[in-house]
Amino acid sequence: MHRFVAPLLASATLALAQTPAPKMQPYGLVIHGGAGVIQRNQMSPELEAQYRAKLAEALHAGYAVLERGGPAIDAVLATVQVMEDSPLFNAGKGAVFTADGICELDASIMKGDTMQAGAVAGLRRIKSPIQLARDVMEHSPHVMMIGEGAEKFAASRGYEFVPNEYFQTEFRRKQLEKAKEKETRATNGTASVPIDLSSPGVSDTDWFSREQKYGTVGCVALDQQGNLAAGTSTGGMTNKKFGRVGDVPVIGAGTYANNATCAVSSTGWGEFFIRATVAHDISAQMEYQAKDVNSATAATLAKVAKLGGDGGVIVLDRHGNFAMDFNSEGMYRAAKFAGKSEVVAIYGDEPRR
Amino acid sequence: MHRFVAPLLASATLALAQTPAPKMQPYGLVIHGGAGVIQRNQMSPELEAQYRAKLAEALHAGYAVLERGGPAIDAVLATVQVMEDSPLFNAGKGAVFTADGICELDASIMKGDTMQAGAVAGLRRIKSPIQLARDVMEHSPHVMMIGEGAEKFAASRGYEFVPNEYFQTEFRRKQLEKAKEKETRATNGTASVPIDLSSPGVSDTDWFSREQKYGTVGCVALDQQGNLAAGTSTGGMTNKKFGRVGDVPVIGAGTYANNATCAVSSTGWGEFFIRATVAHDISAQMEYQAKDVNSATAATLAKVAKLGGDGGVIVLDRHGNFAMDFNSEGMYRAAKFAGKSEVVAIYGDEPRR
Repeated sequence: MHRFVAPLLASATLALAQTPAPKMQPYGLVIHGGAGVIQRNQMSPELEAQYRAKLAEALHAGYAVLERGGPAIDAVLATVQVMEDSPLFNAGKGAVFTADGICELDASIMKGDTMQAGAVAGLRRIKSPIQLARDVMEHSPHVMMIGEGAEKFAASRGYEFVPNEYFQTEFRRKQLEKAKEKETRATNGTASVPIDLSSPGVSDTDWFSREQKYGTVGCVALDQQGNLAAGTSTGGMTNKKFGRVGDVPVIGAGTYANNATCAVSSTGWGEFFIRATVAHDISAQMEYQAKDVNSATAATLAKVAKLGGDGGVIVLDRHGNFAMDFNSEGMYRAAKFAGKSEVVAIYGDEPRR
Repeated sequence: MHRFVAPLLASATLALAQTPAPKMQPYGLVIHGGAGVIQRNQMSPELEAQYRAKLAEALHAGYAVLERGGPAIDAVLATVQVMEDSPLFNAGKGAVFTADGICELDASIMKGDTMQAGAVAGLRRIKSPIQLARDVMEHSPHVMMIGEGAEKFAASRGYEFVPNEYFQTEFRRKQLEKAKEKETRATNGTASVPIDLSSPGVSDTDWFSREQKYGTVGCVALDQQGNLAAGTSTGGMTNKKFGRVGDVPVIGAGTYANNATCAVSSTGWGEFFIRATVAHDISAQMEYQAKDVNSATAATLAKVAKLGGDGGVIVLDRHGNFAMDFNSEGMYRAAKFAGKSEVVAIYGDEPRR
């Protein structure tokens, strides 16, 4: 509008001359495929190449949506679904096993413009949990649905169900067997009794074997209209019991989006991420202290560490500033923005922004 | 310590002389029994007297714990259990019915000193959901458990189960019947099809009939050791479908406690309270902007209203400052602090602090 009004007034013309050329709305996305003990010496070159290729594929799926002017929420969905469909990540196909030997899936999604949100937990037969989270957001008056009830909603929306075996992989079954062996050793063969953290001799590390926390997937995206969105999907924790749910379906912990601040997707030790309200805590520092993405993210991850937890987050603001930070050894991550070089990274010594 | 060190140094003595006599740690608690359309002209004097008496009974149960030096978390439990056991409130006995004609209960609890938290959702056979939330917090490595899994955990802890009929009351069954009639009218007899808010002619008010949102209960407490705790328990929303869960089991939305800021318990239209991350948003303003309890609470409730939601919160800081504020017509509420007069209130024109 300035362009047409300015010539009418000398002062306005001067102001225009001093204003730099209007910047294009930046757009792009950041993704993660889980944080944990990911070390170079434990990864074969072949597996590493598979991870990097799948991260790039997921990144490109979402970027293509943004490039053609599509909404951030569609980019989040497209990206997360590539990772849900890949057995490499702990979401959808390839999810970890519960103690009962099945897969139970959680997901959530949020839009930064309307602050609408959707979350699902404890799914057993829905191929794409992130899709169902989106339908809860857009086609129900609710935010969160759990268990069989959530699947009934899916049925009413015409979803086809998959058998639980669709999600199950041999690799994850072996992880469950190892976890059960460890648990049996830690509890002297009384693993059927719930481990009480208040019992002497049972450290929480025994229960939460660290290498069981890999692979939650997530995406934060910024579209050409300047809208943010975030989504997260997971199989939770190997050997989880008692309908345990982590931070992923908890809006404000695992997922958050607000155009006024940022979009966030978390991955890590979910219990600590809930207690620290991680995603909203990052947003709150930007809202109330005008912190930038990186300092807000660092401060919140420091709180998680202080509580005793680890993991990572991806955070993106409306100007295209982003962080993919973590206090674990590594995090599968990638970012792509218009006019900038693509980043795909895994280890702790690779880029975090 | 100053008392003994001070005489050794003149400057210290002077400093001591200028310091006011050490104040006793304030202690006490604030409770709510739900917010909604609560109006004088719709309440019989007998029913009003019953509510005031039960609020006072719940208040005294928690206060007795604090008065004898017990921890805030015990006071929260004692208070919430009185309200869970009363058919007057939508928690435990007297919970509202789901669309399937049963009761499904959610609860959460959090400690301000350790920031430990526990949450349960979708319970059908646990007499005191707040007790199970506490056991998840204290006797498992998890924060959140849902549905049958959560009940299996209860069984492993030796809980006795009650039949779902224990929770069911005639009054709530009639509310369900009314809600179903309304829904049938709103959807032209197609109530078995899920209402899609994106459909023309279906307003969200049709679905969320406002008088169905009463009665969640909660408590925030401050003990003589200066520790805060918060807890919330609910039957959710009349005629809820699809395993719908509101803000109550969402740490950071329905319940939050942090000794550095405040303890919060929410009640109201849960979907909006999740999207606004109500409990943590109040805490964040105190943490990041040094706001007091009342201004932080008012700012967050204004955000909920802007999104289109209503309800209320109780908020308490470590110095005994508290708010029991709401943007609905009324909120069942009460407060009692050492050395101060007790407050029991229901309507919008009664005290809010």
